[in-house]
Amino acid sequence: MNRVTIEKKVLSENDRIAARLREALTGTGTLALNFIGSPGAGKTAFLEKTLERLPVHTRAAVVTGDLQTENDAIRLRRYGFPVRQITTVGACHLDARMVEDHVSDWLQEGLELLFIENVGNLVCPTSYDLGEDLKVVILSCAEGEDKPLKYPGIFRKSELMILNKIDLLPHVPFRPELALENARSINPDIAIIQTSCITSAGFDPWMNWLERRAARKKAAASTLAAATR
Amino acid sequence: MNRVTIEKKVLSENDRIAARLREALTGTGTLALNFIGSPGAGKTAFLEKTLERLPVHTRAAVVTGDLQTENDAIRLRRYGFPVRQITTVGACHLDARMVEDHVSDWLQEGLELLFIENVGNLVCPTSYDLGEDLKVVILSCAEGEDKPLKYPGIFRKSELMILNKIDLLPHVPFRPELALENARSINPDIAIIQTSCITSAGFDPWMNWLERRAARKKAAASTLAAATR
Repeated sequence: MNRVTIEKKVLSENDRIAARLREALTGTGTLALNFIGSPGAGKTAFLEKTLERLPVHTRAAVVTGDLQTENDAIRLRRYGFPVRQITTVGACHLDARMVEDHVSDWLQEGLELLFIENVGNLVCPTSYDLGEDLKVVILSCAEGEDKPLKYPGIFRKSELMILNKIDLLPHVPFRPELALENARSINPDIAIIQTSCITSAGFDPWMNWLERRAARKKAAASTLAAATR
Repeated sequence: MNRVTIEKKVLSENDRIAARLREALTGTGTLALNFIGSPGAGKTAFLEKTLERLPVHTRAAVVTGDLQTENDAIRLRRYGFPVRQITTVGACHLDARMVEDHVSDWLQEGLELLFIENVGNLVCPTSYDLGEDLKVVILSCAEGEDKPLKYPGIFRKSELMILNKIDLLPHVPFRPELALENARSINPDIAIIQTSCITSAGFDPWMNWLERRAARKKAAASTLAAATR
């Protein structure tokens, strides 16, 4: 077997587990979001700010992936929701089995929202389905506007793009309209929300978007449950 | 063969080509630097600024890797040195064969400096030896101070760390002394230079460092040539 064959086998095994996980998430009406971005795009800060604003009664949970350290889990646990760190010990992405192993008991208890923070990497996580409802790509204004063109895979597969750290716009040579144009040239249907975790800009539209998307998932799960009753 | 076996085979084939390339670079006294950093760390801007400051008679060349686009090569060509784009079409790292294929004719003509800009990724490029003399990790102040702890592999393997975008320090919650402490906890011997491509801070020490390092390589090559004569 050559390398490509092995890669295909690994991905098809991953797809099998992802499909099982997706079925479980549909059964429980859980909206699962897979956050992908470069190291330093602000994924953890974005999730912290999101947890801070979530109504306390929300049944939400987070898994966060890193090669090493529990740092992100420690940061995210401050908001009262359950958080688990997945330490990949060298692997450059999360896979469906890692997620399934860490969330199965939560799903049995019932969960409305599952946030998955992937390893900081714009390339490899793109290929691994985690059973999620949608991928969210986070791009920071401290990066370049041409990232959607250079890393088209993740922008093509994401339902939502968060353009983060817009508080830095006065200090960086970054033209947001060009970044948006580039993202839309790769994926004309991508939703885009511009945010800052420092000024809180964009968090009202984001929380509304999230609420609507979660309600849609819940309604679909109820319809399915009624149809199979 | 399982996946790990295949990975090992791929890496050992890569090491074989890297060793051949390293021998060629030693023969010509060329200093080769492999720049690794997240997307948006400022690798291309850093190299632009470096080429701008290089004496025009320097025999220097650049290969730059990206999944897609010729953007970086177009930017880097403005400084009068030869530049070639390596488009990896999905691969998350450069490998030794890609570099060898793109630089062999340059080496035959004689080259003092070879800059290799890797694909934007703090993880996968770390495992692939490109025959280089040293790896340089670029970290931006818009990222987090704990990146050395989260991605220890590249900080362990780098001879030099560039802490870039220090012009942003007044505008970001980033403590450079903590980032330096973290990097040194992973690699006590790592050299560190703090730079800004906007204000040009740090480029005098960097150009001096580069000149000394290139002279050392050249001297080693001459000694070796005399010994084998």
